[in-house]
Amino acid sequence: MSNEPVPLSPWRVKLHEVIFEADTSAGKLFDFVLIWCILLSVFMIIMESVEPINDKYGELFFWTEWVLTVLFTIEYILRIICLGKPFKYIFSFFGIVDLISILPTYIGIFVYGQGHNLVVIRALRLLRIFRLFKLVRYVDESRVLINGLRRALPKIVVFIGAVFTFIIIIATVMYMIEGSHKGSEFNSIPRCMYWAIVTLSTVGYGDLAPVTVPGQIFASMVMLCGYGVIAVPPAIVTIGMVESFRAKVDNRSCQQCGSEGHEPVAKYCYACSALLPESHDKDGE
Amino acid sequence: MSNEPVPLSPWRVKLHEVIFEADTSAGKLFDFVLIWCILLSVFMIIMESVEPINDKYGELFFWTEWVLTVLFTIEYILRIICLGKPFKYIFSFFGIVDLISILPTYIGIFVYGQGHNLVVIRALRLLRIFRLFKLVRYVDESRVLINGLRRALPKIVVFIGAVFTFIIIIATVMYMIEGSHKGSEFNSIPRCMYWAIVTLSTVGYGDLAPVTVPGQIFASMVMLCGYGVIAVPPAIVTIGMVESFRAKVDNRSCQQCGSEGHEPVAKYCYACSALLPESHDKDGE
Amino acid sequence: MSNEPVPLSPWRVKLHEVIFEADTSAGKLFDFVLIWCILLSVFMIIMESVEPINDKYGELFFWTEWVLTVLFTIEYILRIICLGKPFKYIFSFFGIVDLISILPTYIGIFVYGQGHNLVVIRALRLLRIFRLFKLVRYVDESRVLINGLRRALPKIVVFIGAVFTFIIIIATVMYMIEGSHKGSEFNSIPRCMYWAIVTLSTVGYGDLAPVTVPGQIFASMVMLCGYGVIAVPPAIVTIGMVESFRAKVDNRSCQQCGSEGHEPVAKYCYACSALLPESHDKDGE
Amino acid sequence: MSNEPVPLSPWRVKLHEVIFEADTSAGKLFDFVLIWCILLSVFMIIMESVEPINDKYGELFFWTEWVLTVLFTIEYILRIICLGKPFKYIFSFFGIVDLISILPTYIGIFVYGQGHNLVVIRALRLLRIFRLFKLVRYVDESRVLINGLRRALPKIVVFIGAVFTFIIIIATVMYMIEGSHKGSEFNSIPRCMYWAIVTLSTVGYGDLAPVTVPGQIFASMVMLCGYGVIAVPPAIVTIGMVESFRAKVDNRSCQQCGSEGHEPVAKYCYACSALLPESHDKDGE
Repeated sequence: MSNEPVPLSPWRVKLHEVIFEADTSAGKLFDFVLIWCILLSVFMIIMESVEPINDKYGELFFWTEWVLTVLFTIEYILRIICLGKPFKYIFSFFGIVDLISILPTYIGIFVYGQGHNLVVIRALRLLRIFRLFKLVRYVDESRVLINGLRRALPKIVVFIGAVFTFIIIIATVMYMIEGSHKGSEFNSIPRCMYWAIVTLSTVGYGDLAPVTVPGQIFASMVMLCGYGVIAVPPAIVTIGMVESFRAKVDNRSCQQCGSEGHEPVAKYCYACSALLPESHDKDGE
Repeated sequence: MSNEPVPLSPWRVKLHEVIFEADTSAGKLFDFVLIWCILLSVFMIIMESVEPINDKYGELFFWTEWVLTVLFTIEYILRIICLGKPFKYIFSFFGIVDLISILPTYIGIFVYGQGHNLVVIRALRLLRIFRLFKLVRYVDESRVLINGLRRALPKIVVFIGAVFTFIIIIATVMYMIEGSHKGSEFNSIPRCMYWAIVTLSTVGYGDLAPVTVPGQIFASMVMLCGYGVIAVPPAIVTIGMVESFRAKVDNRSCQQCGSEGHEPVAKYCYACSALLPESHDKDGE
Repeated sequence: MSNEPVPLSPWRVKLHEVIFEADTSAGKLFDFVLIWCILLSVFMIIMESVEPINDKYGELFFWTEWVLTVLFTIEYILRIICLGKPFKYIFSFFGIVDLISILPTYIGIFVYGQGHNLVVIRALRLLRIFRLFKLVRYVDESRVLINGLRRALPKIVVFIGAVFTFIIIIATVMYMIEGSHKGSEFNSIPRCMYWAIVTLSTVGYGDLAPVTVPGQIFASMVMLCGYGVIAVPPAIVTIGMVESFRAKVDNRSCQQCGSEGHEPVAKYCYACSALLPESHDKDGE
Repeated sequence: MSNEPVPLSPWRVKLHEVIFEADTSAGKLFDFVLIWCILLSVFMIIMESVEPINDKYGELFFWTEWVLTVLFTIEYILRIICLGKPFKYIFSFFGIVDLISILPTYIGIFVYGQGHNLVVIRALRLLRIFRLFKLVRYVDESRVLINGLRRALPKIVVFIGAVFTFIIIIATVMYMIEGSHKGSEFNSIPRCMYWAIVTLSTVGYGDLAPVTVPGQIFASMVMLCGYGVIAVPPAIVTIGMVESFRAKVDNRSCQQCGSEGHEPVAKYCYACSALLPESHDKDGE
């Protein structure tokens, strides 16, 4: 298969414009209808799970579901048709999301015919919730946030790893203290780990709480340490975002040696002393 | 209606001074009385809702309420009288707040006469709580805070949107795990969403908590992820505020040596002692 | 009374050295003993409140209490004796704290003799907990923290005021929603305010939680907004501390015009262009 | 004992390479096996504490435990053999961790033979959880995080000390308010301290909550103050980390124009293009 762009017939070019571009009024209408279909679909999946509502409107849900699935199927087929190289789309993130959005409904019939049990069918139907990801296409503004988070992510993963180690130690100590006490619910390390996570994250359900005095003293110490623990992620994310903003401020690269990361005030390249192009940073976002 | 300022008779000018300006002693007295009337009024609305207190002091509340309403009505009328173009005030934020502050009491009588039920009357009476907004006029110091928040707001909205999507996914997974378990209260997606919000915001009432082992493992994972989620808003607001402070500093650069980052009060360049251009910082945005 | 320093006899100078300065070994010993007496005293007050422990060691507590009180009394008298102008000390923060540390024990006897009831006596005895403040004398390292907080304090006060207004509104709306529902505990605005504070501060005891569907939806919205609210104080304090550190970096003042707040890189005064003294900033702490 | 390096026979050099270095494929395999043994071991300790699982797989756990202990023992002996100066290793952090990892199993038999009670044996066996620390050898990426925390640590300790003082005061006041109320569980200062810690850290189990109106008002005030308290650690850690990052940048100033803030990779001044002095940044502290 060559890498040359495949020439498309005019109606496919037109179709591509409507589906993939939002500049024309037809394209805007298409996007508008699609977004509302997705939101309606997600709303219905949520409502279906409420038994009294499902008992009452079950049939309505059933038929709307089919109408929406048919619409999403048409959309999926149109997308494939109007592209010169459809396989790139099919195996892309959005291609897979679009497929998952329609598949469960169809499989549902097949599985039902096979007499599978209800749990499997329900799980399948719930998969439709991933239609939410079809919305990602329409949210551009989140990119700065995501960039900042992506910079912070490796440090957050290391941090959560460290917290997890910390949690195992805390859980073991708590198990030593309260484990053999009658009436205490801290009767296994995994349960203590659950408690430690609930406590250190400051969620504090209260479904598990220490009942002995040493247990309460130890829990108090853990909570005071929690001050230090909960303080780390905001610091990491703040720094990640500051870096992400700063990186945006100046993206000039030296025309002589290609080095990047110049300060906005810099006039000369720090690596080869060549004159830099004018700094054209626009203020604001 | 022309845009020319309407000439006011001397007593209206005098009245305007008392009501809208705080420099004269009469103006200060007016503001002082008004603030205490508002605070007293809000305090009474809160106390009225406590049944034993209302049973005891109900009559006192009733008459104080009427005195305050009459006072607020006089204030409202005076404000309209002393202004050249009253409609601008009537349809402004403060004009509407001032109207809402008195209306419920009057409508209350009318509605009562019509024999409407108690819920409607109570809701109406509670609307008077918006008298609180009359205080906004007197809080100037909050402007820097609000400025910083306003810069951060669009990002916070995107963030809450992202969290909400995240919550729908978490709720659906939790519903898959615990939904069919007997004795579990996670029996619908909206309920799971409520739990997900209570957990991710680290509030953790504990009125809903997972009871199965897989449910508790999943909840633990959600709480660990919550570390990352709760870290984002402080980062956004910190950056928003830093920007808001920095914007206030100034962006002059020395015309001799190009150095930047001068303080707004600076007259001379800190690097080469050359005269700086005039500082043209407007306060606020 | 003149402002001239009063000449002290040699033994009073010596005494002053021991009590107020920590450089000599006698002074260090004095401080060491005092700190441990304070800690012991606070520990005893806490333990006394636990009934089973008090029943068992009550007599021991009683006598230790008297020994410590006598020691603190001697310390108080010595401090007054060795100072040239004792009234300045007596009415200073530490003078009052030192007095409050001994007074309750003495008043206790008098009150007991008068046959006052137990609640008054207990409240009096608990006042001794303020002996803790005697320790403040010995904690120098906290000054940077306190400085940073003091800069942030006015903004935090405005912020808490804003949150409080917000809480009144939330409480009123919640009272409208759940107030008339049977079985709901949200039966007065003050109770709703308590709930709103517990929720917005992410403490979430769970002693009050909404039971109706609209109540849970509204609570979810409040919690999501809570993300924005909880994000503000870290931002304020971070900025306050950054400013406090920056202020420490450069404390040169212009020798010509006395202006302060020069950047560490500045060579010339930004106000009068005079040459600044060398920047002698030591790095870090 | 001399300080000269002890010459090692070739097979010990080879052994040292396998155990202490990760560059060769033998060394990588050794590390890989060791890491999985540690993880397996920790997983088993956690699972052993769950009674139903222990009842079922107790024997499996017993034998796996012995195999792992023997492996760790061999590792410990090999480490000692291949080093020229083994005592330095034995008394190092990792030497002690490695010893603690194997000792409990051996002591377990001895103690069991002596007929000690179950609690002691269980506590001993749980000590094996410290095998987790053997993993620290393999986590390099956490150094930046740890550096930032280490800078923030002294301030966090002062902060926790201040919070603790604050908590004693709050607990005493709460004890005054609710202590004599029947039905209230705030019947001793230590219990009130536990409550104060649970509240101020925003964990909020709800196992203790005020029941009187003054108690709830005071609790509300504490929670509002908690906003200020919880805000401090993120600020401290953020600043600590920013400093730690900045320290890594560099502190050279241009010898021609005095401008600062050069990147560590910079060779030429960004302001005047003069050659900069050599960058002498050491990585880490």
